[in-house]
Amino acid sequence: MSNYGFKLKEYENRLEKAQSLMHLNQIDILLITSEQFMRYFTGFSTQFWQSPTRPWYLIIPIKGLPKAVIPDIGLSAMQKTWIKEIYTWPSPRPKDEGISLISRLMNEFPSKFNYVGAELGKEMSLRMPLTDFFFLQSTLSRKIIDASSILWELRLIKSNAEIDKIKHICKISSNSFENLPSLINKGDSERDIAKKMKMDLISQGADSIPYLPVISGVGGVSQIIYEPTNRVLKSGDILFIDTGSTYDGYFCDFDRNYSIGKASKNVNDIYEILWVATQNAIEGATPGLFLSDLWKLMANSLNKYLPNNFNKGRFGHSFGLQLTEPPSITFNNNMKLEPNMVLTLEPSIEFTPGKMLVHEENIVIRENGAELLTSRAPYKIVEIN
Amino acid sequence: MSNYGFKLKEYENRLEKAQSLMHLNQIDILLITSEQFMRYFTGFSTQFWQSPTRPWYLIIPIKGLPKAVIPDIGLSAMQKTWIKEIYTWPSPRPKDEGISLISRLMNEFPSKFNYVGAELGKEMSLRMPLTDFFFLQSTLSRKIIDASSILWELRLIKSNAEIDKIKHICKISSNSFENLPSLINKGDSERDIAKKMKMDLISQGADSIPYLPVISGVGGVSQIIYEPTNRVLKSGDILFIDTGSTYDGYFCDFDRNYSIGKASKNVNDIYEILWVATQNAIEGATPGLFLSDLWKLMANSLNKYLPNNFNKGRFGHSFGLQLTEPPSITFNNNMKLEPNMVLTLEPSIEFTPGKMLVHEENIVIRENGAELLTSRAPYKIVEIN
Repeated sequence: MSNYGFKLKEYENRLEKAQSLMHLNQIDILLITSEQFMRYFTGFSTQFWQSPTRPWYLIIPIKGLPKAVIPDIGLSAMQKTWIKEIYTWPSPRPKDEGISLISRLMNEFPSKFNYVGAELGKEMSLRMPLTDFFFLQSTLSRKIIDASSILWELRLIKSNAEIDKIKHICKISSNSFENLPSLINKGDSERDIAKKMKMDLISQGADSIPYLPVISGVGGVSQIIYEPTNRVLKSGDILFIDTGSTYDGYFCDFDRNYSIGKASKNVNDIYEILWVATQNAIEGATPGLFLSDLWKLMANSLNKYLPNNFNKGRFGHSFGLQLTEPPSITFNNNMKLEPNMVLTLEPSIEFTPGKMLVHEENIVIRENGAELLTSRAPYKIVEIN
Repeated sequence: MSNYGFKLKEYENRLEKAQSLMHLNQIDILLITSEQFMRYFTGFSTQFWQSPTRPWYLIIPIKGLPKAVIPDIGLSAMQKTWIKEIYTWPSPRPKDEGISLISRLMNEFPSKFNYVGAELGKEMSLRMPLTDFFFLQSTLSRKIIDASSILWELRLIKSNAEIDKIKHICKISSNSFENLPSLINKGDSERDIAKKMKMDLISQGADSIPYLPVISGVGGVSQIIYEPTNRVLKSGDILFIDTGSTYDGYFCDFDRNYSIGKASKNVNDIYEILWVATQNAIEGATPGLFLSDLWKLMANSLNKYLPNNFNKGRFGHSFGLQLTEPPSITFNNNMKLEPNMVLTLEPSIEFTPGKMLVHEENIVIRENGAELLTSRAPYKIVEIN
């Protein structure tokens, strides 16, 4: 069982890495606005991000400690973190929602490179009103530029303490998937099953379940992301469940497939192909390999069974504080695998238009190869009778 | 029990209102990027927003039907909605994450006012990479301007079908708060209680629990937003629980306070003051009243008991598809109450530095006054022995 929180050293390491990348990229200050990067740097842990009323800011200078610039409602909560310099404004204050304060604080820092880096790039969005962003820029002596490459680089390689949390939620969700057949009754709808799975996940120790598509279809599913419906499961259906549950802020992201009643030969065949493709990736994922090579390990395996008849999209991605994080495992991604990268392996086949199966496991790259974080899906699809 | 989904007419009404406001504000096209406005206009219902990899777009022209411009992974899911025109691109495609497609589609619309309205203003953020936003603007013949006032105006007045969903989740959460004392055991920590409350909420029919601070402290709490901790409750504690649970996408937002063991005279007094302040607002909230008047109904009541010794911040706000939505109930908000506005009433008192109590109920404004959506908190704080 993993403990909540991190040691101070974890945050100091993150700050040190950030500041070293800021030097390399000639950035004086990082401006953080999003839940996940705020949590990454400070440990600030709240669901209050659900409220869009108030922006929250963290300023990371190239030297020295981060400053939190937050609505006054968050002061006492932020004091629970390692952040010592906390500035607040009375919020909501629509006419100046923290902007004059953060502007003054940023302008006070000595300038070296004249750049502020912010969350402007790929796979992220800035969590503040854009009108405020434009106004902030107009008050700063420095130019705000995209720091997404630095920011994602920081979160790419997980610490062992982070991996422990991911492993913990992967274990909880694996157990829950194993329990599922015993929880389902005849006449259950997708919604009924989602409810049972949620209760089981929470009873086993998941903190939250931000992602739980429960989808069914005859012999396969037509899509993998929509909310569960009142469709009642019947014999011949495939039941697909994906989950991004969390423990202490960290996600798992993997799915399982079940056959309601006896699986058809076609379902058994496709399931086996996906299982083998995933197995090849698990066994082949070693540091130094390109992500495109990892993609090929899965694609070649699919191609052997179903020549040219498979989805050429992404077969997985990283994850951690979010359900999905860069990089993607795609045919042309030339990033190399490194120790402590956490990945989902996720080959899929749409074997008939509107019918697909997706298999998924979570791994962490270690010096000698992949360590499986999930309890491996059985080689044969589980039948629920 | 409220049903999932809405009739087609609900979406047609929303579109009609939007287009009428676009005329008034001289906007040719609305560009939608966020989960909640996408859901508001289309009914698209997925937790896939948890993945920041892919942006999702909706284009609403001043005349005609909306067009969804989305990653190909969402096609089959979007086809479940009333949206007929769906354009997709193969995603992830980092070099062109839908931008050329959306730009072409927007430039094809005949121009009247030369403005595109987007989610750039108060209490919102744009859910797309800002680098993509800047590039998109550079390819458009029209200027992108802030449409937040239109967008929030649309969501301010709820339909009765929306209110039914809010009422349903308020009822579920009210029941769960009433059950809570019977669920708590000696030796439970905040985390244990959070877990029990989550399971109870789900078992009663809540779809998700995005917001559930469970906070305890001797005689009051020091803050109201942080994640629960391992602190074990003991006699003399106040247990504060707030919840934003959802049903079919719609939130409730209200809290309850409990005393562990016998409540002190001070706690009883403060609790009663807050209860009365809330009651005055429930009884006084009628169409035509300014929000500042509603604030005063609560403030005067607090002031009578605790002259000049109360928080002058906001005493509530609207909510719906989000935990908090504009407007705020503040001393200077000159917006008028209108039928079908849904509000939380939330007076609070910090009676000693670092010790506070917050009381909260949810109402909807009707022609003749407020209708209570929550089951009214008892006049005396509930003691858990």
